[in-house]
Amino acid sequence: MENKLTAKSAIVLLSGGLDSITVLAGAQRQGYLCHALSFNYGQRHNAELAAAKRIAHQYQVQSHKIIELGLGNIGGSALTDPHIDVPLTPQSGIPVTYVPARNTLFLAFALAWAEVLELQDIFIGVNAVDYSGYPDCRPEFIQAFQTMANLATKAGVEGREIRIHTPLIDLSKAQIIARGLALGVDYSATVSCYAADADGRACGSCDACRLRKAGFEALERPDPTRYQCNNS
Amino acid sequence: MENKLTAKSAIVLLSGGLDSITVLAGAQRQGYLCHALSFNYGQRHNAELAAAKRIAHQYQVQSHKIIELGLGNIGGSALTDPHIDVPLTPQSGIPVTYVPARNTLFLAFALAWAEVLELQDIFIGVNAVDYSGYPDCRPEFIQAFQTMANLATKAGVEGREIRIHTPLIDLSKAQIIARGLALGVDYSATVSCYAADADGRACGSCDACRLRKAGFEALERPDPTRYQCNNS
Repeated sequence: MENKLTAKSAIVLLSGGLDSITVLAGAQRQGYLCHALSFNYGQRHNAELAAAKRIAHQYQVQSHKIIELGLGNIGGSALTDPHIDVPLTPQSGIPVTYVPARNTLFLAFALAWAEVLELQDIFIGVNAVDYSGYPDCRPEFIQAFQTMANLATKAGVEGREIRIHTPLIDLSKAQIIARGLALGVDYSATVSCYAADADGRACGSCDACRLRKAGFEALERPDPTRYQCNNS
Repeated sequence: MENKLTAKSAIVLLSGGLDSITVLAGAQRQGYLCHALSFNYGQRHNAELAAAKRIAHQYQVQSHKIIELGLGNIGGSALTDPHIDVPLTPQSGIPVTYVPARNTLFLAFALAWAEVLELQDIFIGVNAVDYSGYPDCRPEFIQAFQTMANLATKAGVEGREIRIHTPLIDLSKAQIIARGLALGVDYSATVSCYAADADGRACGSCDACRLRKAGFEALERPDPTRYQCNNS
């Protein structure tokens, strides 16, 4: 069996964005041997996945698995359905970029892999501050998932508790960036934009770009994001 | 948007086996317009999926979606990993045919689709009696999943409660068959065997075959299962 480690090992959900690289760097700093898990779910911003691969390589993770989700098939989000536009101005309520049950699905795959690798720790970079419009980024969702996970699995039945770690959940974007910079993270390698071009250059206008920009501004640190022409 | 129904609509997880056809027939009898959801997760017994398609057609479901799960990629079960043999004699504890986090994944996809279709009812044919070795078939798991689902989704946030229905959870295999026969189910169309051949003929020896056989015997009803030669 590949990489079945009984030492301090963890699965880290790695999207290729600003948050997940910070989580990975932090988990490694805590001494975890990390297995990275990414998803190809028909997201428009596939440059994110290319970034995930570069980051996994850069951080020399134990293994990197990319799951083909085929969520485009289900539709319902501006991130996966070509008939829904990504909004370029601020919206209220649950954003149209919300992907139905996305974190439930991501964590479910992480859980399956955790069972196979016989490890108990799963890290996810959800954040309840900047993304409060997404129901599956709230602490009560994470807590409920963890409870369910321990009833769903052999690990839970055998008393090896599954733990879902959300080190960024209470942080502002500026605090996340500050933490990452302290960990030596190079944010130029990451892609956050919902409408990045094929080279991973950001649009500068979507929700994700605005939050990221404001984070660097609040910190008064240079923004290393590569923007598309005329969009810096 | 395809088939977005505000009337009494439901998603039914349809494996193509004895249990799920019974659940589908029962949900339709209760008046639900049913959307069937199946998974291609690298299971060895792909004849099951062919059966699911036939059943979806026979029951004229509103739509039938087959998700490509790519779970073989994760490994860890005799049902998806060619390096682990399906046992042909009874085993104790959690069976090697247990697929890590399978019902969590199946229900997570159903949840995502329920969000898109804007419906609240999901039916799954889990059974705690015959399959007590699988942690994700227990009522407490289902209850925890439902709690999590209502925190994870737009439906939950907006007060439209997601309900996970498990009509077979407390029934013996014989009771399930009796219910299905009363609903007019033709069990010859279903495949339960973990090691069925390409034509969907059962081995007669695996756990699933033994349980199914015993069910018909207990009821003293003819077993319509098509067996491989010398295995009836």
